[in-house]
Amino acid sequence: MTHPSFRLEHDLLGDREIPAAAYYGVHTLRAVENFPITGETLAATPDLIDALAAIKWAAAEANRDLGLLDPSRAGAIIAACREIRQGALHDQFVVDLVQGGAGTSSNMNANEVIANRALELLGHDRGAYGQLHPNEHVNMGQSTNDVYPTALKLAALSGLHRLAAAMAALRQAFAGKAAEFSDVLKIGRTQLQDAVPMTLGQEFATYATMLGEDEARLTEAAALIREINLGGTAIGTGLTAHPEYAARVRDHLSRITGTALITAPDLIEATQDCGAFVQLSGVLKRVAVKLSKTCNDLRLLSSGPRAGLHEINLPAVQAGSSIMPGKVNPVIPEVVNQVAFEVIGNDVTITMAAEGGQLQLNAFEPVIFYSLHRSISHLTAACLTLERNCVRGITANREHLRAMVEQSIGLVTALNPFIGYQTATAVAQEALQTGRGVLEIVLERRLMAPEELAQVMHWDALTGAVGATPETGS
Amino acid sequence: MTHPSFRLEHDLLGDREIPAAAYYGVHTLRAVENFPITGETLAATPDLIDALAAIKWAAAEANRDLGLLDPSRAGAIIAACREIRQGALHDQFVVDLVQGGAGTSSNMNANEVIANRALELLGHDRGAYGQLHPNEHVNMGQSTNDVYPTALKLAALSGLHRLAAAMAALRQAFAGKAAEFSDVLKIGRTQLQDAVPMTLGQEFATYATMLGEDEARLTEAAALIREINLGGTAIGTGLTAHPEYAARVRDHLSRITGTALITAPDLIEATQDCGAFVQLSGVLKRVAVKLSKTCNDLRLLSSGPRAGLHEINLPAVQAGSSIMPGKVNPVIPEVVNQVAFEVIGNDVTITMAAEGGQLQLNAFEPVIFYSLHRSISHLTAACLTLERNCVRGITANREHLRAMVEQSIGLVTALNPFIGYQTATAVAQEALQTGRGVLEIVLERRLMAPEELAQVMHWDALTGAVGATPETGS
Amino acid sequence: MTHPSFRLEHDLLGDREIPAAAYYGVHTLRAVENFPITGETLAATPDLIDALAAIKWAAAEANRDLGLLDPSRAGAIIAACREIRQGALHDQFVVDLVQGGAGTSSNMNANEVIANRALELLGHDRGAYGQLHPNEHVNMGQSTNDVYPTALKLAALSGLHRLAAAMAALRQAFAGKAAEFSDVLKIGRTQLQDAVPMTLGQEFATYATMLGEDEARLTEAAALIREINLGGTAIGTGLTAHPEYAARVRDHLSRITGTALITAPDLIEATQDCGAFVQLSGVLKRVAVKLSKTCNDLRLLSSGPRAGLHEINLPAVQAGSSIMPGKVNPVIPEVVNQVAFEVIGNDVTITMAAEGGQLQLNAFEPVIFYSLHRSISHLTAACLTLERNCVRGITANREHLRAMVEQSIGLVTALNPFIGYQTATAVAQEALQTGRGVLEIVLERRLMAPEELAQVMHWDALTGAVGATPETGS
Amino acid sequence: MTHPSFRLEHDLLGDREIPAAAYYGVHTLRAVENFPITGETLAATPDLIDALAAIKWAAAEANRDLGLLDPSRAGAIIAACREIRQGALHDQFVVDLVQGGAGTSSNMNANEVIANRALELLGHDRGAYGQLHPNEHVNMGQSTNDVYPTALKLAALSGLHRLAAAMAALRQAFAGKAAEFSDVLKIGRTQLQDAVPMTLGQEFATYATMLGEDEARLTEAAALIREINLGGTAIGTGLTAHPEYAARVRDHLSRITGTALITAPDLIEATQDCGAFVQLSGVLKRVAVKLSKTCNDLRLLSSGPRAGLHEINLPAVQAGSSIMPGKVNPVIPEVVNQVAFEVIGNDVTITMAAEGGQLQLNAFEPVIFYSLHRSISHLTAACLTLERNCVRGITANREHLRAMVEQSIGLVTALNPFIGYQTATAVAQEALQTGRGVLEIVLERRLMAPEELAQVMHWDALTGAVGATPETGS
Repeated sequence: MTHPSFRLEHDLLGDREIPAAAYYGVHTLRAVENFPITGETLAATPDLIDALAAIKWAAAEANRDLGLLDPSRAGAIIAACREIRQGALHDQFVVDLVQGGAGTSSNMNANEVIANRALELLGHDRGAYGQLHPNEHVNMGQSTNDVYPTALKLAALSGLHRLAAAMAALRQAFAGKAAEFSDVLKIGRTQLQDAVPMTLGQEFATYATMLGEDEARLTEAAALIREINLGGTAIGTGLTAHPEYAARVRDHLSRITGTALITAPDLIEATQDCGAFVQLSGVLKRVAVKLSKTCNDLRLLSSGPRAGLHEINLPAVQAGSSIMPGKVNPVIPEVVNQVAFEVIGNDVTITMAAEGGQLQLNAFEPVIFYSLHRSISHLTAACLTLERNCVRGITANREHLRAMVEQSIGLVTALNPFIGYQTATAVAQEALQTGRGVLEIVLERRLMAPEELAQVMHWDALTGAVGATPETGS
Repeated sequence: MTHPSFRLEHDLLGDREIPAAAYYGVHTLRAVENFPITGETLAATPDLIDALAAIKWAAAEANRDLGLLDPSRAGAIIAACREIRQGALHDQFVVDLVQGGAGTSSNMNANEVIANRALELLGHDRGAYGQLHPNEHVNMGQSTNDVYPTALKLAALSGLHRLAAAMAALRQAFAGKAAEFSDVLKIGRTQLQDAVPMTLGQEFATYATMLGEDEARLTEAAALIREINLGGTAIGTGLTAHPEYAARVRDHLSRITGTALITAPDLIEATQDCGAFVQLSGVLKRVAVKLSKTCNDLRLLSSGPRAGLHEINLPAVQAGSSIMPGKVNPVIPEVVNQVAFEVIGNDVTITMAAEGGQLQLNAFEPVIFYSLHRSISHLTAACLTLERNCVRGITANREHLRAMVEQSIGLVTALNPFIGYQTATAVAQEALQTGRGVLEIVLERRLMAPEELAQVMHWDALTGAVGATPETGS
Repeated sequence: MTHPSFRLEHDLLGDREIPAAAYYGVHTLRAVENFPITGETLAATPDLIDALAAIKWAAAEANRDLGLLDPSRAGAIIAACREIRQGALHDQFVVDLVQGGAGTSSNMNANEVIANRALELLGHDRGAYGQLHPNEHVNMGQSTNDVYPTALKLAALSGLHRLAAAMAALRQAFAGKAAEFSDVLKIGRTQLQDAVPMTLGQEFATYATMLGEDEARLTEAAALIREINLGGTAIGTGLTAHPEYAARVRDHLSRITGTALITAPDLIEATQDCGAFVQLSGVLKRVAVKLSKTCNDLRLLSSGPRAGLHEINLPAVQAGSSIMPGKVNPVIPEVVNQVAFEVIGNDVTITMAAEGGQLQLNAFEPVIFYSLHRSISHLTAACLTLERNCVRGITANREHLRAMVEQSIGLVTALNPFIGYQTATAVAQEALQTGRGVLEIVLERRLMAPEELAQVMHWDALTGAVGATPETGS
Repeated sequence: MTHPSFRLEHDLLGDREIPAAAYYGVHTLRAVENFPITGETLAATPDLIDALAAIKWAAAEANRDLGLLDPSRAGAIIAACREIRQGALHDQFVVDLVQGGAGTSSNMNANEVIANRALELLGHDRGAYGQLHPNEHVNMGQSTNDVYPTALKLAALSGLHRLAAAMAALRQAFAGKAAEFSDVLKIGRTQLQDAVPMTLGQEFATYATMLGEDEARLTEAAALIREINLGGTAIGTGLTAHPEYAARVRDHLSRITGTALITAPDLIEATQDCGAFVQLSGVLKRVAVKLSKTCNDLRLLSSGPRAGLHEINLPAVQAGSSIMPGKVNPVIPEVVNQVAFEVIGNDVTITMAAEGGQLQLNAFEPVIFYSLHRSISHLTAACLTLERNCVRGITANREHLRAMVEQSIGLVTALNPFIGYQTATAVAQEALQTGRGVLEIVLERRLMAPEELAQVMHWDALTGAVGATPETGS
């Protein structure tokens, strides 16, 4: 005899007791037992739950419009979905994000929670699936194979919105520093060797430019995932779905989510293909590469305080050492580097999962989403802490920077057009060996007239940056 | 004036209010604010907390032995560490696992929690660091740069223990099936094309053999991470540590953890080097590759039920589809594949983080541990569910397998030594074109005598497996 | 005294003997000695040599227009470049493709070969750099740091042209097979388990669709690398270049190469950034993932001949085994898989090289190009052999495919809307246990009327493909 | 009518003309046509050709011993193999290294060349396979599936020998510098920030230590690939091979190659498993990571000459720029970094290829070897050029290094045990703000007595290195 705090549910494997208070059902229970992998459940990705609810809602509307689902059941399903999108019942989404079955358990979990809440709204007991069935009514005209990838795309789009905002904030912080440092002359470096002059403003402007380009690429990649396969059902042939269903569900879903979705022209291809995820991950990897390079630079430029490049100062945000008193470390760029490495690793995971798809379906979409979700959310967090706790507070060591330019051998490059590469090489070598400045050697050797030299050495001319010359410039 | 539910703590950035009930302090608070990255805190990796507590305990013993730490403070620190290792105060380890600062915040978090608990045990208020200081007493003779990597290694070793046990269980399950299927003849395949006969038992034995080899490799890699750099302090030179400290703390730590630890011969190298982690991750990747290959095979061999290879049946563990009634999918191998892809991606993350180390320290150890921890724990979970929910229940379709052998063209290979490669090729081609069996063609062409042919076709001879011939064999 | 078969050249390290017949000079010689890495020289990538020559030609025109280079020298340089672009002197490009120095040695090699050939055309001896200097005249207004990345982009564009053509040919071959197989019904599979019906034509159409999408993505990525940094010189500030030079050299180069090039708006960013290469490699990886998945499918569908899926036959292109007579293997898809794996590995190399760039330059562009070049050229070769030696000759085992559909349990899915998910599950289970067909069970149980069932089972309805029903259909 | 300069050969696809002078045959010809992928043929990897010849030689001896192969044919085969191992006929190995078919074409190419040369030695025409057949005699008792992986292992071992020697030379060069710089005090750095003192000798010693550890790991991984599957034939069951063949061929092969080989205990597992290659590649990746880190350090420490760390000088080996006169770049470390990135990418390729193996064979071994070969040979070249053209000639800027230590704030760490972490923090902050030295502040504040301070500041004490104090030390 069953304990009253349980209800019995049945699937093809037999009967199982479900906690009476649970909105999920037997299929979810099986999945929880089968996939105790990461401990992170669907509840950890509210975007995905919201997306599943939006799809079920849109499907109920489409099926009701087509006369396939009676208004009462449709209404109850829609009401349940609306509640979920408002934040209710997320704790009922208990399957592990990393799961076998190509997302079936995620879809089943959603079907069961929505069915039981709808049943409740209709005045029935949970589990009274004869009245409203998870797979027959909530899942009507659908398959995991079109619902789940569509949900992943909607969830990714939500995350990408936040990432884009974080990147824009970071870009603006860099642009602000570029303006602030526009009159700070410094020596540029190639291959870590002193090269030719530039402004610190130019250097920071590149970080803003890079982010701007990445934002554009991300927008393009995001556009590709607005193409969905809803209506394809099991393998893209649309079996069991009404001929008008695909268009109707897409329109409802676009309205509900506020996103202009597109039905893929080849639904069979769209059902098995993970190309858009691979592409998106590739672009996230690109963002990570650039952010990491930028943070490498910030760490390098702020090295010191005495035995380093010491060009800029990152704001101190915590004590740097449990043993070295007074040490302050570039901890914010360091954490961003680490996120970048994770994103690059995630890209390999996604690549392998996409390559492993077979025939009419890719069974490995759960780990694709799991990795993509982490890449997007960790990158967002990294951009925000970099903007807030680091870039905004960066200051320049102006005098040190100017001194480095003035004693730089790289200045001789500017004289190439006047004295030739070979003569310039000789001047550079003498400067290096004697420790003297290249300009004094040029004048001493009477290679150029002082006035001509002064003109060439004008800071605007050297850097190509209008306004590079500081008011108190040399 | 400060609210009574807070206490004031001070660091080089100024004063901050700390919740009065908190055992962590100002350095931890800063880190929480600086690194809101993954949401997974130290509390998510109890192995790491236990390891940190063991190190602090061992250090207190060593410093007390050396007369540097008075017995009262040492006793309180040790008592606090013991409690933590028994499971107490884990919720006070609140910094994000992915953090800048090369683990400083993790070390600081441990120092503060232990100091405050020790203060309490000594009858002082939390925050009364004049009595017992996180960095001066708990961290005595230590630096994050020797404590943190040592803790990572101890934590990894704990995880590897569990992984090895899970792999052994899985290996035994495969070995059990190998015995069970030792008399099931089947056609082996190379490049997915029918090749020559073998037994299903031989096929499953390879999965056991592979796991056995991987366990051996894992044991070797685990041995390498028993080498620690404790005593090296900031950069490996041992600055501030007593000359005898390194040996003493290692011995205490070995005793406390029950692990025979080794002090690295070159502490400066050991402080900056992440080679052992890269190697370990490489071996985990190897394990993942093999497991994934094995699961690919299981999915392939169980394909069907009617239009697939249909050689074995995986136990049904959940309904396979929300739309296709009666469908059962290989969900357990599928989730193992996905874990494998994640481990392979993590290896790239770890590789990049190791490569990015500079000069006397690798600042990216947190993401190395974060990734390593996930690889180890997810692989463990994957092995366990594969053993429990899949391999144990596999059955063979014996009749179908025998039929496939009997009509196989690959049998002709066994005749090579008797009729030659070119004649055998002609027989194979005739069989393929006519749909007939190779043996009847050989007899018809009088290429071999029936008795001789029967002898060559004896199942033991064909498979090299003693006892391959079933009792009811051909 | 120098042997007459040598000439002496000088650089900052001293004098060196250069073979009298060589067009390259001392800088090239140093590089050959410094980088004996892969054995593959610039001569292995004619696209890159052509690109370097086009840039030097365009620069000579721009500098002549601006009055910086006299018409005689400009003319000789242009003539030398034209000869090189016609195939001359490629054997003089002797530095290893993988080289330190951010491509300086490649640029130097080009400067020296062009200078010496130009000297010859002007009637001077090779090495008479007082008349026409590699760095002062051939390299005028240029730096390796703008020349080399621009050359890499032009070379990549040439390769991408050929890749796009190969992909289009392969796409057309798949589309041809899709048409040929449009009336071949088969059972679709998800997770390697029998799912629901489709046509073999639909299956092949997806391969064509995938390639079409990849071609579109590749075109987008190619467009991004038309943005060049020529005119930025050493670090993007344009030092030593005439203010009008950037626009003029771009226009000449666009004309010479027949490619509409764009000058990057932020030349400093463009000089250090490898984002476009990362993006391009990411898209090549996407192409590789899809091709590999497609080839996995082809190998799976053609498995057999007797104990496999045996749905299609790949054309035999060579004997498959040195031991198994008559064995034919899917060798062409197998080689494509391997190229895909290489491309995916190359993407990691490119990612790491891009991430490793520091400050105003990425010193690792040589390995980026080396990897990109291999990805592009090997993918091109893979597409061509797949099209020519495999796809064109694929045939279908029509009767076997039809039989598999007819006995498929997945047919029951189509009855969901009529008999419900739970009843359908029971039918499926009975079919599975008894070995009977689902349709006869449905009729026996009187779940549907025969006429209604026949209508649902109409092949067009099942597959959603107009014209799926074969003339001799069931 | 066939041109007399051709001979006709036949395979299952029909007749083909083979150039009369060719030693390869029809199977090789087909492969050349099927795999025009990389342009790199077996001839590019002499180690692999030598290994194939050794195996064929050993097999002929074993089969002759067992009475399966007559002494005349055996002798001719052995003689042909000996010639090949002495360098003959390598140009006849014309198939692409990247090939479908799991290496069948490589094995066939070897069988044909050896057969035709043996025929010639026996006085027959090439192509007279009735006398001595490539597959029946040269390939007797063998399959590609045991020959090819065994050959890959032997070839890899040869490469590893050379790599180990190169690593040892490099290690010795670093050790030499460690000795040379043992009295050069410098400031160590963690997270690019000034930390505590050490010697430059200690810093270089770590590079030697790292290499030594990597050599040990490489030796272990190399030992694993001495386990071979020769005797397993097609799938490891030994079909067609004499029961004593496996042991005999292994012994002969060990003798011929001078390598103690082991027959795998589970030949079926050994035939399908690529774990040893994955492990080896993982260790090569580890070597690459360390080398790359080392080169990153060298580039950082030699940055300057004026606006960088300027601690050491790398020998100038070529002019650094086509535009910046006198610039010298760290081109040798840069090329090593790039090789490291390639090796890391190759590891991903190998991982994917290993994961993709199915059932009784891994069809992707060619790309595994291709990648492994490149990793080994490029790493070898990288070590050699790093040793010869860089490390040997490194010099130290002793005075600059000493000045950096003397003004370092990190010195205060040594005072922790005397003045406490909090007081030390205050001293550090004052030093940073005022630009003064920490020692003078300590004395001014009377925190320590001058004699005590001097003792703590003794260079040996600071660095833990005996003899760190230079003769002219402070």
